Amino acid sequence: MIITLTTDFGLADPFVGIMKGVILGIAPAASLVDISHSVPSYDIDAGAFALANAAGYFPAGTIHVAVVDPGVGGSRHPIAVAAGGQVFVGPDNGVLSLAAGRFETGYVAHRIANEQWFRHPVSRTFHGRDIFAPSAAHLALGAVIELAGPRLDSMAQLATAQSPARVLAIDKFGNIVTSLRRAELGPAFTLRIAGQEIRRLRSSYEEAPRGELFAIEGSGGFIEISAREDSAAARLSARHGAEIEVETGPSNH
Amino acid sequence: MIITLTTDFGLADPFVGIMKGVILGIAPAASLVDISHSVPSYDIDAGAFALANAAGYFPAGTIHVAVVDPGVGGSRHPIAVAAGGQVFVGPDNGVLSLAAGRFETGYVAHRIANEQWFRHPVSRTFHGRDIFAPSAAHLALGAVIELAGPRLDSMAQLATAQSPARVLAIDKFGNIVTSLRRAELGPAFTLRIAGQEIRRLRSSYEEAPRGELFAIEGSGGFIEISAREDSAAARLSARHGAEIEVETGPSNH
Amino acid sequence: MIITLTTDFGLADPFVGIMKGVILGIAPAASLVDISHSVPSYDIDAGAFALANAAGYFPAGTIHVAVVDPGVGGSRHPIAVAAGGQVFVGPDNGVLSLAAGRFETGYVAHRIANEQWFRHPVSRTFHGRDIFAPSAAHLALGAVIELAGPRLDSMAQLATAQSPARVLAIDKFGNIVTSLRRAELGPAFTLRIAGQEIRRLRSSYEEAPRGELFAIEGSGGFIEISAREDSAAARLSARHGAEIEVETGPSNH
Repeated sequence: MIITLTTDFGLADPFVGIMKGVILGIAPAASLVDISHSVPSYDIDAGAFALANAAGYFPAGTIHVAVVDPGVGGSRHPIAVAAGGQVFVGPDNGVLSLAAGRFETGYVAHRIANEQWFRHPVSRTFHGRDIFAPSAAHLALGAVIELAGPRLDSMAQLATAQSPARVLAIDKFGNIVTSLRRAELGPAFTLRIAGQEIRRLRSSYEEAPRGELFAIEGSGGFIEISAREDSAAARLSARHGAEIEVETGPSNH
Repeated sequence: MIITLTTDFGLADPFVGIMKGVILGIAPAASLVDISHSVPSYDIDAGAFALANAAGYFPAGTIHVAVVDPGVGGSRHPIAVAAGGQVFVGPDNGVLSLAAGRFETGYVAHRIANEQWFRHPVSRTFHGRDIFAPSAAHLALGAVIELAGPRLDSMAQLATAQSPARVLAIDKFGNIVTSLRRAELGPAFTLRIAGQEIRRLRSSYEEAPRGELFAIEGSGGFIEISAREDSAAARLSARHGAEIEVETGPSNH
Repeated sequence: MIITLTTDFGLADPFVGIMKGVILGIAPAASLVDISHSVPSYDIDAGAFALANAAGYFPAGTIHVAVVDPGVGGSRHPIAVAAGGQVFVGPDNGVLSLAAGRFETGYVAHRIANEQWFRHPVSRTFHGRDIFAPSAAHLALGAVIELAGPRLDSMAQLATAQSPARVLAIDKFGNIVTSLRRAELGPAFTLRIAGQEIRRLRSSYEEAPRGELFAIEGSGGFIEISAREDSAAARLSARHGAEIEVETGPSNH
């Protein structure tokens, strides 16, 4: 059984290794895959985007654990969410909502309240170790999600879910991942960001002349703003969360 | 069988992957877990702390390999140490001492001198590949520790083991991990670091008002100095190894 | 079956995790090992060097996937190359050539054109996910390389393969890895880099006095320029690709 991990813990500290030790102590045959541990500290949006981008490429039955959890030890609940044949485990602060909320068949969310699953004593600062890792391991062993705790009517959503077009992420190559889908742009469009206009859609990097800023449909299905073998983000000083102005239809310029 | 790896090799170079290749060539069913490869270069204390923090969360039978080894190729011995139902493999320079030395039941240390376990020729610069990885793999296959080589009376300790309160580590969130345990502080205390005084103990991050510097018992059992969703280390310019002045009992300030 | 991954994707974005999800969806029992994901963006030479350095330490049957692919979606072909009992999968741009080309027994290269292996639709920007990961998984399941596609007469080589002595890599410790082999230097030599001369060959770091710049045979079989517990690269402002002047035989200085 595959268990994936997405956190803002980084890889320098032993936190991720500790979660894996707890998981393997309960479910020795689990196959562990890191999605990302470089989510910016406390950035629930970025964690939700990384998980939503990756989850669809894993087989049915995969259990995804996401821990971006500025409210750890406070009032937010731990939850387990079944959606699309997979299970998502993490705090109920929106970090699971993009990945688990995109299925037309809906989702089923349960509060995790089964103390038999927890490591004791449960710390106030590291639920990844004491609640989320062991819960994922018990689910991987075959426990049904109903054993986690009472069913919830809904899960928390991201505060930014309804905002206009914006920068979702900057990847390592400096590609600017936007919240726009190809179908939203139509045959002609103008994107405005940082005083620059982008009007060209390319279908591969190699098709673009060096130096050009262009739009391209990224592998995650979102429109990205790119420059061939160059950082579009550096050229536009683009930052995560920045708004993008979108105009569709023919342009007179 | 689980084998963990803790090194100062970083993840950019192929060294960690090479160690894993050597291990899997001998013990194909080993389950490999990274604790940290971002230990600062040559920093035996930091490597010892990362391993000691993580080891207790792994099940009995786990084999831990730690390679922070400025003396590689010199006179220090490779050792294997059985303690608490686990085995620790690395150079005899103190890097194993915190993790393997904390059990009341003691430890049993053996020099690793069994050349049948080594990759040949043994390089002078990469014992992680030629001695530690294959030795861990042979132990994972079930070899008893007595086969490693002659028993030793003791293992090397950290030079800093007896020093007063100090900063053990700065984590990715800017929490300052100190060498202090909760019981050492009592009901009232003052910690002095970088000209600032910390007197409040919080039991969760969310309990603290933003902007406050507070103490909290971290997940590893050490007192940490923290600020809610902020970097305490940046605010105090705290560095690994810095001393902390501790006063217990009521304060007149 | 072991599958290794070498890319310039970094670990912050979910790209590596996505490739692993695709692989495990096809070949659930695959054992995945990261060689490096910190290859500088688009640096085919550096990716080729990391893979060549590591591949020999993996057992026969290992499948190595390398994706440093500035031409993705363009005219370069995906290839699978059998050499030395292992299989190498990646773009035909030279990134596989150092690792797969060093065997006296030669290599057998096939274009990967079997669309039954691909994820559909195949994106123009992420062949790691849609072509290389699933092809490696099918090979791990036992598919013979002839099923990949037509045999090729040769594979692309690195543009730099014939250049004089140069800096192949800077490792995390600041060791300068050169393209020189021990046998090329003879009993006496002078290396000139950045206006400094290095004439001493040491057999371990510990043998050198602190402050000295010296040559040493690194674990990968290349001559490295090092300083004990110090960064030779920082002291010499050495960069990847820089030329090194080599003089052999006794010196008059």
